[in-house]
Amino acid sequence: MRSQRACRIGSSIVDGVSFSDRLAALCGEKRSHVCIGLDPLPERLPAAVRSADDPIFEFNRRIVDATIDVTPVYKPNLAFYEALGVDGLRSLVRTVEHIGHRAIVLGDAKRGDIDSTAVAYARAMFEAFGFGACTINVYQGHDAAAPFLAYRDRGVFILCRTSNRTGGDVQDAIVDGRPLWEHLARRAVEWNQHGNCSLVVGATYPDELGRVRELAPGLPILIPGVGAQGGDGRTAARKARGGPFVVNSSRGIIYASSGDDFAEAARRAAIELRDQALLEPAAR
Amino acid sequence: MRSQRACRIGSSIVDGVSFSDRLAALCGEKRSHVCIGLDPLPERLPAAVRSADDPIFEFNRRIVDATIDVTPVYKPNLAFYEALGVDGLRSLVRTVEHIGHRAIVLGDAKRGDIDSTAVAYARAMFEAFGFGACTINVYQGHDAAAPFLAYRDRGVFILCRTSNRTGGDVQDAIVDGRPLWEHLARRAVEWNQHGNCSLVVGATYPDELGRVRELAPGLPILIPGVGAQGGDGRTAARKARGGPFVVNSSRGIIYASSGDDFAEAARRAAIELRDQALLEPAAR
Repeated sequence: MRSQRACRIGSSIVDGVSFSDRLAALCGEKRSHVCIGLDPLPERLPAAVRSADDPIFEFNRRIVDATIDVTPVYKPNLAFYEALGVDGLRSLVRTVEHIGHRAIVLGDAKRGDIDSTAVAYARAMFEAFGFGACTINVYQGHDAAAPFLAYRDRGVFILCRTSNRTGGDVQDAIVDGRPLWEHLARRAVEWNQHGNCSLVVGATYPDELGRVRELAPGLPILIPGVGAQGGDGRTAARKARGGPFVVNSSRGIIYASSGDDFAEAARRAAIELRDQALLEPAAR
Repeated sequence: MRSQRACRIGSSIVDGVSFSDRLAALCGEKRSHVCIGLDPLPERLPAAVRSADDPIFEFNRRIVDATIDVTPVYKPNLAFYEALGVDGLRSLVRTVEHIGHRAIVLGDAKRGDIDSTAVAYARAMFEAFGFGACTINVYQGHDAAAPFLAYRDRGVFILCRTSNRTGGDVQDAIVDGRPLWEHLARRAVEWNQHGNCSLVVGATYPDELGRVRELAPGLPILIPGVGAQGGDGRTAARKARGGPFVVNSSRGIIYASSGDDFAEAARRAAIELRDQALLEPAAR
């Protein structure tokens, strides 16, 4: 195993506790299954942060600080930072550092490659950016997953059933009489040697979500697609019960208000999602 | 269409000429189908560049300058730069700028997402990094391709049949009685409204490569997997004829020598690949 000495760690590491158990414990502690997508667009930043030295970081910082007690997982999607070039990626690194050990930072990167390149991507996600977890795309099969899964303490979320409609172009292909997304859920269970192999299933496909939970009882599931994309948080939580899960909302939370009260509005939206996605009534 | 005014362009743009025609013309001018993978690893850099201000850029610069007349396409894989964090990405941007209009810079990113995120990734690849082309992964179907294809003058290479063995996990799934990779080659032809939709097929699967060329006669094909991965450049070129193509080698060229003659050795290796992949004898 790679030494951890050179790593910046975006989430707390407890020796001997699997990623799956750590996620479950964090959701328990915070009594929340909320994942907030930190996907900033410069043109949508509120006036209050535009004059900051690093407006993207400042926007993220205020949202994080307003929501940290109800949010076990933050999920920056790398696309929004890369679109701003090197400066955007610097804002991302600052965001990961700012969250620190207070939550899991899940780098939504959907990386997928083979061989020494997959090794380099895993190093990028877990060492250079310091994410506690990331999403991957396994179009190239197990080769695309193995170098990520070798980081035993980090969560590796494999795209299984995505929230969009045209995903069927690929995901409804048939393997041994079953759809590809189902095949991958089964493969993920085989690949899960360290309690860190996890899955992504869209809230927009509740039946498929229930089926994935059946096939992969203990695997963490990241559930995007509530809010702007039309999925329902309550249904998603009901389908995903029986193992660790988080329900993501990005735009519905971070742009809950376009005014200078954006952080308070984000907190209210996060609490609303928390209450929907809890399987028992929550105390505020 | 998005305005081009804010773009740094990694490859020359000629109004009204499709990406496919531009690639074919460049291969014709240089009498070469060589693509060089610029995948630098700090631990493999020759002593001659280690003391430079930006060793990664210096390594790339010398290789590019030694090979530019025989190389229509350079393909940096983003993994190797991301693994070095923000500094690595700065070296990448400098590399793209250094190549400028002298070749097509194909960002091997294998990005794939949906909705506003796919739009952000396309902007990242074609505007922030300034690539003339990039690779994408369409596990999410057409949604993952559309925002890239909307940049009419840029090449969009869809992962079809990857060069590795475990790709079959996913790519051998069946759609309408045919393997997924074949299905995607057909879809790519439908999606090709601007002469910029392109495919990736590994040299390690020559029969599949021939089949893809049959199904997608005019589409550019990027062929990885020669050299270190065991594919044969001559066979690949024979199978891919009938449309634009480039054959990629990364380690076989950039690490042809570990000494201070690395750039000259890269040139010799590139010329060897050029001669293999030419469909007619080349003049040196």
